[in-house]
Amino acid sequence: MTVEEVIQEVERMLSKDRFNHTLRVTEVAVKLAKHYNESANKVKLAALLHDYAKEMSHDELKGYITNHQLNKELLQFNQELWHGPVAAHLANNVLEINDESVQRAIHYHTTGRAEMDMVELILFVADYIEPARDFPGVDQVREVAFTNLHEAALLSLKNTIPFLIQKGATIFPDTFLAYNDLTTFVKGDSN
Amino acid sequence: MTVEEVIQEVERMLSKDRFNHTLRVTEVAVKLAKHYNESANKVKLAALLHDYAKEMSHDELKGYITNHQLNKELLQFNQELWHGPVAAHLANNVLEINDESVQRAIHYHTTGRAEMDMVELILFVADYIEPARDFPGVDQVREVAFTNLHEAALLSLKNTIPFLIQKGATIFPDTFLAYNDLTTFVKGDSN
Repeated sequence: MTVEEVIQEVERMLSKDRFNHTLRVTEVAVKLAKHYNESANKVKLAALLHDYAKEMSHDELKGYITNHQLNKELLQFNQELWHGPVAAHLANNVLEINDESVQRAIHYHTTGRAEMDMVELILFVADYIEPARDFPGVDQVREVAFTNLHEAALLSLKNTIPFLIQKGATIFPDTFLAYNDLTTFVKGDSN
Repeated sequence: MTVEEVIQEVERMLSKDRFNHTLRVTEVAVKLAKHYNESANKVKLAALLHDYAKEMSHDELKGYITNHQLNKELLQFNQELWHGPVAAHLANNVLEINDESVQRAIHYHTTGRAEMDMVELILFVADYIEPARDFPGVDQVREVAFTNLHEAALLSLKNTIPFLIQKGATIFPDTFLAYNDLTTFVKGDSN
């Protein structure tokens, strides 16, 4: 599928607001890709498709996870976490986007994971800092994103995990593993 | 080993301040045990021994973990987390305290874990609320400890995890698993 076809397919699946969010994330992600000399094409595909499954219903997502043998542990956690793995699976199996780095970036864009590669980190951070976001602390992440991508991803988790704890939400294990991994990486980096 | 002998052995191993902390934890833990109709004897042994290894040196703890095939993952995390597993192992193998619930309570008193039993929860909470503790939020945990022990343990983690994140510390996976487990348990409990 060409990038143009992907854009049309994503627009077909999403509301106008979420499609516009997708375009903003894509723009930031491509800027980050160029800044860090990463493949703008991979990053663009990942960003365009990251919320591809987000407007599927609870039952559609649950059925998809069950029928395609995705990680069943997901179903014990908030539905917010389901659309990434489903979109990654659709990208591979329906849209024939076969790059594994692109698939992982889509899969883990909400939870993060340990040992994210640059494409994954770029999407993870771009989704957090796109211009319409106004979480407390987002400006600090914006400042760091173009100087230290790992630290930007870590800062976003340092905002998100206590926020989720405050809300009384459970936290997907990959998110904790991402936090520990980035903490260790950033500490090592500054030594 | 009798309780009296355990007390003497713990006093021998610890500074005066830490021995006094141990006695305060034991007093609170026994109160909680009686309140919740749990074995005061098990709780007392666990509380007396929880910091038994805390004044061993970095190298002694590291050597013990390596030589006795304890979980090597510990060595990648803060030294603060090492004394519980070492004390539990010493309790079993040297002091002949063979009750598994007592051993687990000692082992996991710093990190917590998923599916803690009542002895484990009592020590975990008692160590957090003993009268000399003055963390922010400790009074709220004290209030809840005698009405809902699981919620008290959860509240302590809801204080501790963001505190560790603020400090930039890595967080041992069992602590996250304890948080998720208690969050799910307490939510189910209130339904």
